[in-house]
Amino acid sequence: MQTVGVGIIGFGTVGAGVVEGLLHNGDLLAQRLGVKPVLKGVADLDIETDRGIGLSPEMLTTDAQALIDREDVDIIVELIGGTGIARTFIEQALKKGKPVVTANKKLLAEYGESLYALSRAYHTDLHFGASVGGGIPIIRALREGLAGNRILAIQGILNGTSNYILTRMEQEGLPFETVLEDAQRLGFAEADPALDIDGYDTAHKAVILASLAYGKAFELHKVHVEGIRRLVRTDVEQAATLGYRIKLLGIIRRDIDSVEIRVAPTLVPQNSMLASVNGVFNAVMVESDLADHTMYYGRGAGRLPTASTVLADIADTARNLAMDAMMRVPPIPPTGESLQLKSIEDIRCRYYLRILVDDQPGVLAKITGLLAKHDISIESFIQKRPDIQGDAALVIVTHEALESDMNAALAAIAEFSIVKPPTVRLRIATI
Amino acid sequence: MQTVGVGIIGFGTVGAGVVEGLLHNGDLLAQRLGVKPVLKGVADLDIETDRGIGLSPEMLTTDAQALIDREDVDIIVELIGGTGIARTFIEQALKKGKPVVTANKKLLAEYGESLYALSRAYHTDLHFGASVGGGIPIIRALREGLAGNRILAIQGILNGTSNYILTRMEQEGLPFETVLEDAQRLGFAEADPALDIDGYDTAHKAVILASLAYGKAFELHKVHVEGIRRLVRTDVEQAATLGYRIKLLGIIRRDIDSVEIRVAPTLVPQNSMLASVNGVFNAVMVESDLADHTMYYGRGAGRLPTASTVLADIADTARNLAMDAMMRVPPIPPTGESLQLKSIEDIRCRYYLRILVDDQPGVLAKITGLLAKHDISIESFIQKRPDIQGDAALVIVTHEALESDMNAALAAIAEFSIVKPPTVRLRIATI
Repeated sequence: MQTVGVGIIGFGTVGAGVVEGLLHNGDLLAQRLGVKPVLKGVADLDIETDRGIGLSPEMLTTDAQALIDREDVDIIVELIGGTGIARTFIEQALKKGKPVVTANKKLLAEYGESLYALSRAYHTDLHFGASVGGGIPIIRALREGLAGNRILAIQGILNGTSNYILTRMEQEGLPFETVLEDAQRLGFAEADPALDIDGYDTAHKAVILASLAYGKAFELHKVHVEGIRRLVRTDVEQAATLGYRIKLLGIIRRDIDSVEIRVAPTLVPQNSMLASVNGVFNAVMVESDLADHTMYYGRGAGRLPTASTVLADIADTARNLAMDAMMRVPPIPPTGESLQLKSIEDIRCRYYLRILVDDQPGVLAKITGLLAKHDISIESFIQKRPDIQGDAALVIVTHEALESDMNAALAAIAEFSIVKPPTVRLRIATI
Repeated sequence: MQTVGVGIIGFGTVGAGVVEGLLHNGDLLAQRLGVKPVLKGVADLDIETDRGIGLSPEMLTTDAQALIDREDVDIIVELIGGTGIARTFIEQALKKGKPVVTANKKLLAEYGESLYALSRAYHTDLHFGASVGGGIPIIRALREGLAGNRILAIQGILNGTSNYILTRMEQEGLPFETVLEDAQRLGFAEADPALDIDGYDTAHKAVILASLAYGKAFELHKVHVEGIRRLVRTDVEQAATLGYRIKLLGIIRRDIDSVEIRVAPTLVPQNSMLASVNGVFNAVMVESDLADHTMYYGRGAGRLPTASTVLADIADTARNLAMDAMMRVPPIPPTGESLQLKSIEDIRCRYYLRILVDDQPGVLAKITGLLAKHDISIESFIQKRPDIQGDAALVIVTHEALESDMNAALAAIAEFSIVKPPTVRLRIATI
């Protein structure tokens, strides 16, 4: 059987998972492909620590450069992560015409455009299935499975750490900090959890998904990102009363000639599929013109689930090498149009508001009057009885409104002496 | 831009959907592929009825044979269905080295082995993504996305008609017949609904999924199939009381050297993802060694969702033709092993039993004693108070037991004079 040589750069959690996958399932994979991916070497700065997967030491090297250059290495698998040396290695490989498989979402979200261009220029595969959704073949679905569709919207629970925290906050009525500490203790959250809980990881993934849907790279820094750090139990409970769960969603939605990409804790109807996604699991709901709603669910991170998708990319690359079919599918298939990123000010959605007020007569009239003045109409509201400080909470669900109108209304509401900060504004998903 | 010619045989619901998809999204598809699929002709016995999609009449022909033979037709799309002339056309195309795209689940489930062999023998693509799950790219996920995984189990809600009926039975407390009539009136069920509600459609799809997972065709006639026709409200309600919903599942599960494939109404825990799948939607939960659980959800039928997947297959084939990469992925990738189909007698699962008895002292002891004699232990039970005839119902949930033991126990229970038929036996899903 024909073989292709695989070189892995980065022997961390995912790297070790891929090696383990190749050792355990390499023969099965070869049977399925008709070509055998053979591990030629693994490069890492640390080649001493035992990863406990029985890889023979002579496979290890600290010289990634040499691994890329080796004649018998046909596919480079980059699993270092980050935007530093990983980028250099990927560029070097592509320039040598060696196809690259990577799971590096941050790099693709920030520098995707130049890497996609390099892949095209050197007519060399660049696969990144594991950059979004871990073991879920969502990138394959978007890139190939829905190729005949116009993508209307993508809404995803893309960060397992945040979803784990939100699930426990809702199910156990715990505050954010308590669940975060627990998650850190259990290994579900990093010591520095900012990337996960502040929404940036989700934003990286949303940008990649949008790129696939609309055939161009989008500017990460222009994406509106809110995390879950300031989310309080009261809103989780109020949302539940209203029939919603709060999920950290990456939302992509096309308009006529623009696309919105945003990340924020969002109210999702309890009876929707996305609301059923609990714990560390991820899911992506895609809305498209032919297939309508399709959803993809699974483990969004973890050693072996991520390895599963890296192996699928290695398989694709191996098939293409064996068939002399490089660039059978380009990294970002073009669509013939170039949609611009919509400003958050221009989006429209329904809103959840919780406003703390002095419990005085006429308060509700004042606030609803002000909302109406800004073209925001109210779908439903709950007035909660005053607490011991005499403060009452107004919980309002609005009809669809424009974000800039909502911003103006909230700025004006903040001026009222009867209103006590902070006013909470969350968006409601259109499912 | 390079073009490939597409000929469609069968201008029914799906055929018209594919034509509409090509007319509307053909340019987008071409942009994404770098090669343009161009419709050359559509063959059907009825070329008079207006399908309302604006296809010019000169594209229509009653001569499918001539369409297959045309020099400028590179891909044959078979959308007639059934095991008659459709089979002949597919065989003719493959023998001419023309790749085939089909959605014909019945044909593949019954005669897949010979068609897969023909595809290999003539080194010609055979794609059938739309044969299972309509718009859900589940076949692509199994064939490529999970290529590095050993598949442990697949459990799917694969028939929209049945799921629509079960959802309404549960949510509205309606009897089977009422919902079926309603579904027929609304167009969600055929005038002859047997294929859907008696489980055969699900069995066809289960056999195809099993073939992809384990690299060989399985014998459809050996698959254990039960439908939902005899399901009564009482059991739907009892299941709900116990924390379950009843879904018509196709279940595939591998053992050491065998595979079980079975179709039956099955109890699914209410908090599981599969239980959240309502109405005409389908979903497939896959359990594999690396990716763990992944689930794929969407519309399992319908004109445009099915067309979406047919277009993805046309896209794949067009890429392969353009790159001279026929058989890049074989129809059924081999796994290097040949698992046998397990007899239903040999499966193990938990069971739900509802036994109608004369309300006499000692009845429970008799029945539980008999179950124990057959190695069946009880996890929980509910004894319902006698009805006006003096009959009491015992609702029993068992621990995992062997099907042949359960059959023997139920045969013995049926002999008791205190037991009134019918005793209901349902299986409980392992999620």
